[in-house]
Amino acid sequence: VREDELIAQLARMAPAPAQRGAVIGIGDDCAAIACPPGEELLLTTDMSIENVHFLPEVHPAAAVGHKALARGLSDIAAMGGTPRYFLVSLALAPWTRTVWVRRFYRGMLELAGRYDTQLIGGDLGHAAVLACDVTVVGTAPTGKALRRSGSRPGDLLYVSGRLGGAALGLSSRRGRAWQAHLKPSPRVELGQFLRELGATAAMDVSDGFALDLSRLLAASSAAATIDVPVPRFAGATEGEALSGGDDYELLFTLPPEIEPPARFGGVALTRLGHIRKGRAGSIRYLGRALAPRGYDHLRDREPAGRPSGEQDAGNADLAQG
Amino acid sequence: VREDELIAQLARMAPAPAQRGAVIGIGDDCAAIACPPGEELLLTTDMSIENVHFLPEVHPAAAVGHKALARGLSDIAAMGGTPRYFLVSLALAPWTRTVWVRRFYRGMLELAGRYDTQLIGGDLGHAAVLACDVTVVGTAPTGKALRRSGSRPGDLLYVSGRLGGAALGLSSRRGRAWQAHLKPSPRVELGQFLRELGATAAMDVSDGFALDLSRLLAASSAAATIDVPVPRFAGATEGEALSGGDDYELLFTLPPEIEPPARFGGVALTRLGHIRKGRAGSIRYLGRALAPRGYDHLRDREPAGRPSGEQDAGNADLAQG
Repeated sequence: VREDELIAQLARMAPAPAQRGAVIGIGDDCAAIACPPGEELLLTTDMSIENVHFLPEVHPAAAVGHKALARGLSDIAAMGGTPRYFLVSLALAPWTRTVWVRRFYRGMLELAGRYDTQLIGGDLGHAAVLACDVTVVGTAPTGKALRRSGSRPGDLLYVSGRLGGAALGLSSRRGRAWQAHLKPSPRVELGQFLRELGATAAMDVSDGFALDLSRLLAASSAAATIDVPVPRFAGATEGEALSGGDDYELLFTLPPEIEPPARFGGVALTRLGHIRKGRAGSIRYLGRALAPRGYDHLRDREPAGRPSGEQDAGNADLAQG
Repeated sequence: VREDELIAQLARMAPAPAQRGAVIGIGDDCAAIACPPGEELLLTTDMSIENVHFLPEVHPAAAVGHKALARGLSDIAAMGGTPRYFLVSLALAPWTRTVWVRRFYRGMLELAGRYDTQLIGGDLGHAAVLACDVTVVGTAPTGKALRRSGSRPGDLLYVSGRLGGAALGLSSRRGRAWQAHLKPSPRVELGQFLRELGATAAMDVSDGFALDLSRLLAASSAAATIDVPVPRFAGATEGEALSGGDDYELLFTLPPEIEPPARFGGVALTRLGHIRKGRAGSIRYLGRALAPRGYDHLRDREPAGRPSGEQDAGNADLAQG
């Protein structure tokens, strides 16, 4: 298939720009979008790479597309934003057939449709391995986006859903855990709800609970004490729940006077503990120090074949504090 | 080097967000930017991949960074826009050392500084080959961005600068042509000038003159007659000038009553011919039909090692019309 033909096919698969407020969509040098008054724009990019984030012989094309977009939607969710548009840069590998590309985009567009988020551009090319980079553009009311840095001592710390499912799914490749690994659900509506509720900080759990929480705490120049075990996905080990990646649940903090509901849209919201003064980024978990173990995208470089999230699953470092 | 450390280093290399109007820069789940009133936002993404767009043993890291950003700036230029921000997704290869990464970002940030364009985010990871994707965000007055589709029969067709230099440089690896290949200059100020002057369409020459012009014509549902040879970079063949990629000059059309200056900012503006009715996308060049030959990012897939722009250089198809 030629480049211009594939771009024309993709333009037909994506809804017309005008339907979603884009001024210029696929097919010009740039896409162009209008800025909603009173809103600021959120931008995030996430790469999905063969043998790092997925294995072509294991992961269906539609799931690769779904997850490539879900990662960016989850970042928008973590800011309390509304996803609006996305761009896809895709480098095809020698093994990639047109049917794979179509299924990949179909998986992506199916998820995009749930959030009324529109494909407006991107880039096509080739490489020795398949590489994809998705840029998601969202909006939030000016000055209201949830940041990592807003937690204050005394705030209460929460997490949505159950952790470790994606790591368990990757190792078992069975059942609900495998589905959770293949097609994560970004918590877009929850993020918006938390922004309106008055959350002081939020972040998505993409590289592992312990590592991501330590990042939120470092940004907030604070520490945390956790006195409730993190809710585990059925069958997941404590290590998978604490250090497995790719769960895309939300970590968030609220002032103690604001109590969230026990569930939101069918997802449990669990109070884990509280934010306190202390060494920035440090976590006390059930009376012990919890090392910020998770997936480091540079440190954990391997020759090949280790998807994100597999690293350290079942091997969390629970140092005696 | 660990991921969080490298991100902190990059955040220190990039100017503070507040200096350029970004609300949230590197280090949160998303970047956030304000929308200037009366402007729309332009978005473009471009991949730069090892053994496709550059060869690690041939291209210096700073030049790889420069060009990775220049490609996006050139897309903004082609819309008559002003570049404002950029995000960089970078997957490191097993051979990539921290010093390479620093030089890569330094080359990129040096070019960004010339256009007051700010690094506000991105993604870091690893892959079997180095892969980079740059998203550039620009602005243009609402409704005024230059599109490919605005050319009308009777408009005159122009090109900036001289073509074929990047293709010649890639094959010779010497002199000014090699510099033109390594560090192209996006025509940002020219694009803005043309928008204000009243250009009806514009596009940058990235995949080759013949292919890119046919795309502009197809978008405008028009044909073109060219009666002046395209200006060639000193030493470039006609094939390199017509079908070599990576020159990043601007193709543009103006109504006949608007005459541009002969030069803009030291760059020649050459009238080549005119837009006419005819089969959409077809080009008559010095009395012959010119096939839309250039670099097709999918068709021209090779096992490895053929950088963009090398394809077809010196081998343009000048069919007898």
